[in-house]
Amino acid sequence: AKAPAKKEAYGGRGMTFEQDIDESNAYYLSRQKAVIHKKPTPVQIVKVDYPKRSAAVIKEAYFKQASTTDYNGVYKGAYIDFEAKETKNKTSFPLKNIHDHQITHMRSVLEQGGICFVLIRFHMTGEVFLIDAAHMITFYDEQHLRKSIKKTDIEHFGHIVTTGYHPRIDYLTAVDQIYFQSSTKGANIDGR
Amino acid sequence: AKAPAKKEAYGGRGMTFEQDIDESNAYYLSRQKAVIHKKPTPVQIVKVDYPKRSAAVIKEAYFKQASTTDYNGVYKGAYIDFEAKETKNKTSFPLKNIHDHQITHMRSVLEQGGICFVLIRFHMTGEVFLIDAAHMITFYDEQHLRKSIKKTDIEHFGHIVTTGYHPRIDYLTAVDQIYFQSSTKGANIDGR
Ligand SMILES: [Mg+2]
Ligand SMILES: [Mg+2]
Repeated sequence: AKAPAKKEAYGGRGMTFEQDIDESNAYYLSRQKAVIHKKPTPVQIVKVDYPKRSAAVIKEAYFKQASTTDYNGVYKGAYIDFEAKETKNKTSFPLKNIHDHQITHMRSVLEQGGICFVLIRFHMTGEVFLIDAAHMITFYDEQHLRKSIKKTDIEHFGHIVTTGYHPRIDYLTAVDQIYFQSSTKGANIDGR
Repeated sequence: AKAPAKKEAYGGRGMTFEQDIDESNAYYLSRQKAVIHKKPTPVQIVKVDYPKRSAAVIKEAYFKQASTTDYNGVYKGAYIDFEAKETKNKTSFPLKNIHDHQITHMRSVLEQGGICFVLIRFHMTGEVFLIDAAHMITFYDEQHLRKSIKKTDIEHFGHIVTTGYHPRIDYLTAVDQIYFQSSTKGANIDGR
């Protein structure tokens, strides 16, 4: 039901980060590599019209607070859950981009043994990093010390994600390296 | 952000099946037993008003076709995915309640090693059954033979789910028995 992406001069440029991730998920799904979807925006529907001979029209609705992160699904039997964030900053990621309910959800997912992370894109360079939720939670809890995460810390604690055409954001290759390469799941989140 | 459920004379009566499941998921989450959420209804938003000093109002939007099932999340590290269905029939479950895109999604989830099933409530008796997606897919593919699943077959291939107050629909106890009791995950879907 989705229109094909407009042709771009350069992979990903002009598309939003979420559109690039959606395209990557569609690619993974079509190759039977993973089943990961963006969660729809939660909306409280108040009034709906049912015109004759055409589709129902929602005439009044309100945005509801999301209670989870942006994306979830299954890869190699494991539960995958992540939030996508983009920043125009060059040297750091401001923690005001992360919300309380997202951190609460990440804690719960880690508690249940799910794989949970944040994908961060630096808009200026197009670089994408995967940072495990455990690290993000630590930075979030230390906001009295620092209001943002230095890019050098993201480079150190996170993992670079390859970007290209198909898929645009190849985060599952990073997931493989981090969570599936070692014998113990999650054991590799600190090392690079 | 949700109003408390109205007091009910009898557990679950008067609540919709999905409300009962939502309440069960809230219970599981509060006890750190699982992180499972209903996916919001997908909506294509066309027009939004931003009135001064009050919340944004969606003035025009349309329902989009869902591409997945109703619920997903993580339990003991495993990916959990299910669809909830209720029928007023007494002796069978009509397969017209199951949609193509739901079956496609279930196939993909099973392919990735996720735990996938359908919860069926028989409205007249309040009985709830869990039937593994593999069985549901078989019945779906055999619609040229039978347009519905006999309740006796659901009793045979499925598992009864305990209902009560907290949680109202205790489907994780059934999940434990079916998917976590034996050494090989998924090995117990046929036996009772
Ligand atoms: Mg986001
Ligand atoms: Mg349903």
